[in-house]
Amino acid sequence: MNLKIGQNSIISSKAKIGNNVHIDNNCIVEDSVVIGDNVYIESNSYIRQGTEISNDSFIGSNCIIGEHQVFYSNGSIQRKDKNSLIIGKKCLIRSGTIIYSNSMIGNFFQTGHNVTIRENAQIGDNVSIGTLSDIQGDCNIGHYVRLHSNVHIGKASVIEGFSWIYPYVCLTNDPTPPSEVELGVHVHKFAIIATGSIILPGIDIAEDSLIAAGAVVTKDVRQYDVVAGNPAKYLTDIRAIINRESGTANYPWRYRFNRMMPWSEEGFKKWYSGLSEVEKEHYGFI
Amino acid sequence: MNLKIGQNSIISSKAKIGNNVHIDNNCIVEDSVVIGDNVYIESNSYIRQGTEISNDSFIGSNCIIGEHQVFYSNGSIQRKDKNSLIIGKKCLIRSGTIIYSNSMIGNFFQTGHNVTIRENAQIGDNVSIGTLSDIQGDCNIGHYVRLHSNVHIGKASVIEGFSWIYPYVCLTNDPTPPSEVELGVHVHKFAIIATGSIILPGIDIAEDSLIAAGAVVTKDVRQYDVVAGNPAKYLTDIRAIINRESGTANYPWRYRFNRMMPWSEEGFKKWYSGLSEVEKEHYGFI
Amino acid sequence: MNLKIGQNSIISSKAKIGNNVHIDNNCIVEDSVVIGDNVYIESNSYIRQGTEISNDSFIGSNCIIGEHQVFYSNGSIQRKDKNSLIIGKKCLIRSGTIIYSNSMIGNFFQTGHNVTIRENAQIGDNVSIGTLSDIQGDCNIGHYVRLHSNVHIGKASVIEGFSWIYPYVCLTNDPTPPSEVELGVHVHKFAIIATGSIILPGIDIAEDSLIAAGAVVTKDVRQYDVVAGNPAKYLTDIRAIINRESGTANYPWRYRFNRMMPWSEEGFKKWYSGLSEVEKEHYGFI
Repeated sequence: MNLKIGQNSIISSKAKIGNNVHIDNNCIVEDSVVIGDNVYIESNSYIRQGTEISNDSFIGSNCIIGEHQVFYSNGSIQRKDKNSLIIGKKCLIRSGTIIYSNSMIGNFFQTGHNVTIRENAQIGDNVSIGTLSDIQGDCNIGHYVRLHSNVHIGKASVIEGFSWIYPYVCLTNDPTPPSEVELGVHVHKFAIIATGSIILPGIDIAEDSLIAAGAVVTKDVRQYDVVAGNPAKYLTDIRAIINRESGTANYPWRYRFNRMMPWSEEGFKKWYSGLSEVEKEHYGFI
Repeated sequence: MNLKIGQNSIISSKAKIGNNVHIDNNCIVEDSVVIGDNVYIESNSYIRQGTEISNDSFIGSNCIIGEHQVFYSNGSIQRKDKNSLIIGKKCLIRSGTIIYSNSMIGNFFQTGHNVTIRENAQIGDNVSIGTLSDIQGDCNIGHYVRLHSNVHIGKASVIEGFSWIYPYVCLTNDPTPPSEVELGVHVHKFAIIATGSIILPGIDIAEDSLIAAGAVVTKDVRQYDVVAGNPAKYLTDIRAIINRESGTANYPWRYRFNRMMPWSEEGFKKWYSGLSEVEKEHYGFI
Repeated sequence: MNLKIGQNSIISSKAKIGNNVHIDNNCIVEDSVVIGDNVYIESNSYIRQGTEISNDSFIGSNCIIGEHQVFYSNGSIQRKDKNSLIIGKKCLIRSGTIIYSNSMIGNFFQTGHNVTIRENAQIGDNVSIGTLSDIQGDCNIGHYVRLHSNVHIGKASVIEGFSWIYPYVCLTNDPTPPSEVELGVHVHKFAIIATGSIILPGIDIAEDSLIAAGAVVTKDVRQYDVVAGNPAKYLTDIRAIINRESGTANYPWRYRFNRMMPWSEEGFKKWYSGLSEVEKEHYGFI
């Protein structure tokens, strides 16, 4: 076993804990939690009922993992009983993060600080979500998606793999506020949404497009389009953006940017040409 | 009494605690706290001196309720001594929320996560404040106001009842930055401010108006006006916005939207016609 | 000594603690921490290895001071070992703040709540950083800089002394997203960036300029320029902005605004004329 537990931690005897687990001071681990091998949980964190944390993951201080839904119903405060959260292998959850139950999160997931992820989020592998981002739940986030700090993802959003969303971007969802309609934004793969842009409800952001910083996007954005302004207007074709130093095209970015991508060693083209149909489907290419 | 207290919690013997109260693990309840009946306080929360939590309320984990003012004065750090915070009945305070002392909060109040509410906030009944919102204090928020995630309410703001403020909206207050003038925004009842709008200091947002997403509002907005852009310009009369499916007017929204509103069962018109003068005054209609 | 320690706190015997220190309940103080005289640490705070907190400072609840870097390297999660953080005298760190190790912070530093400051931040004296601000590290912040709530400071930013940055401003740094280039923004002294502005990578914001609320700044801003809009355009010379009541110029602001400034008692001109060359250099004037 080799379980190390700090001072004042409260670990349920009904929790299943793997080998070489370290749980630091003042932590709480509730009933029916499952913790894999080589997991490290820093001080003051709270692992709630129904949570499963896979091997080799790291949970920083002050986190709440498997937070339960509490809500009004018929004028009184009620709590959801049946809870379930799966967090993949080698995940790195930084301090202050709150993740609700009833979500599934892949391997190599990473958060900044004080991230909130509400219930019913389906999150792929190798996803990174920055400090203070607010994922409202009921959403689908593909593999290798990168959200920077303080991104707001409204309910019913679909964010395909390999898309990048920069700080303070909001994906909205209510076409006639206030209403109960949730018309989410769809961000396609390899799209880039720069800092502080607002995407209106139901908008489609096509593959390989670029939304410039501060854009307010009120119409669908086509493949390869660069849009900017309030309201956002067509600026140029992304393939026309040339690197001043090298004289080569900056976009589509997958041909020049490799860091922490699955093609980091061999480049996109060679990597892609070697994928099986099953792998292509896994990565969202078909 | 039927008081349940988890492990490691530190409860002052000078706190007054009602019946059927549950205080979970690692909580701190300071002197002169008053807790009503059927209150539930989750683990790691800190209820500070001078706080009163009314019956049937719920406090999530990692909250600080009744936070004390600490500030510089004459070159040294000082703390305010006399503290008082009243939180109404059936309030639902989600984890990580910080509420300062010297505020009054009504019944059925609800927060998301990591909300901050500074001192001298007057908040009505049935108000909801979303995750990460930052209420700077010295403000007045009416009944049934809904603030979504990450809303910034500068000091000296007045937000009348039944108004809706969407994510990342900022109500500013300094007309000649930097200055010591606090010229707050006034949002009138039934107004809607969509995602990411910025309202300049001292601006008046009239009843039944709609500020489109991403607007930068530099002039007063008249009743029924829809404004959009940077700087915001008049777009249309809100009453001209027709629902594509039903063919009826979407606004004023009170005639079509009922969820969690006091007229949810009978509709606005019937409900309003049955109000007494005292009730109309209570809701801010006169 | 006169050391007061609350209940359940875990204080390493290898920490060096000064006189008249108060550490409240549920705190953790790790090995090789140095705490000066008259320091007050509120409940639930976590002071990590390698942190030095100077005399007369105050740490609110739920803070993590000296947070360690944890990151992926060669496909596994690793932690940085050698940590060092110096926090100056009379600092006021409000609850929920996270400050990484490997930074240096001056005297009279102040934060709001839930501020995040990543590694390699050089921060001068008398700096104030508002609630929820996100300082990404690898940056340089001069004396008397004021950041309001929810400001995002990208890596490689340089913010000179006496500049003011208002809520929801983003200083970006990636000129061709996604890339590994970090081309920071340079904000010169006495500049003012109003609420919700976005500053593009590598932009130079000159001394005494004013960026209006909601501006998207895509070009360098010259001294005395006021710019506004998306994209930001020249509006006026800041010296032409006249106070309606007094009939005098509002800018440069240092001639009319004194609160918490080093010239608060004698006014800027008299104070400045009395500075030695060494003092002028200290304040960044030469």
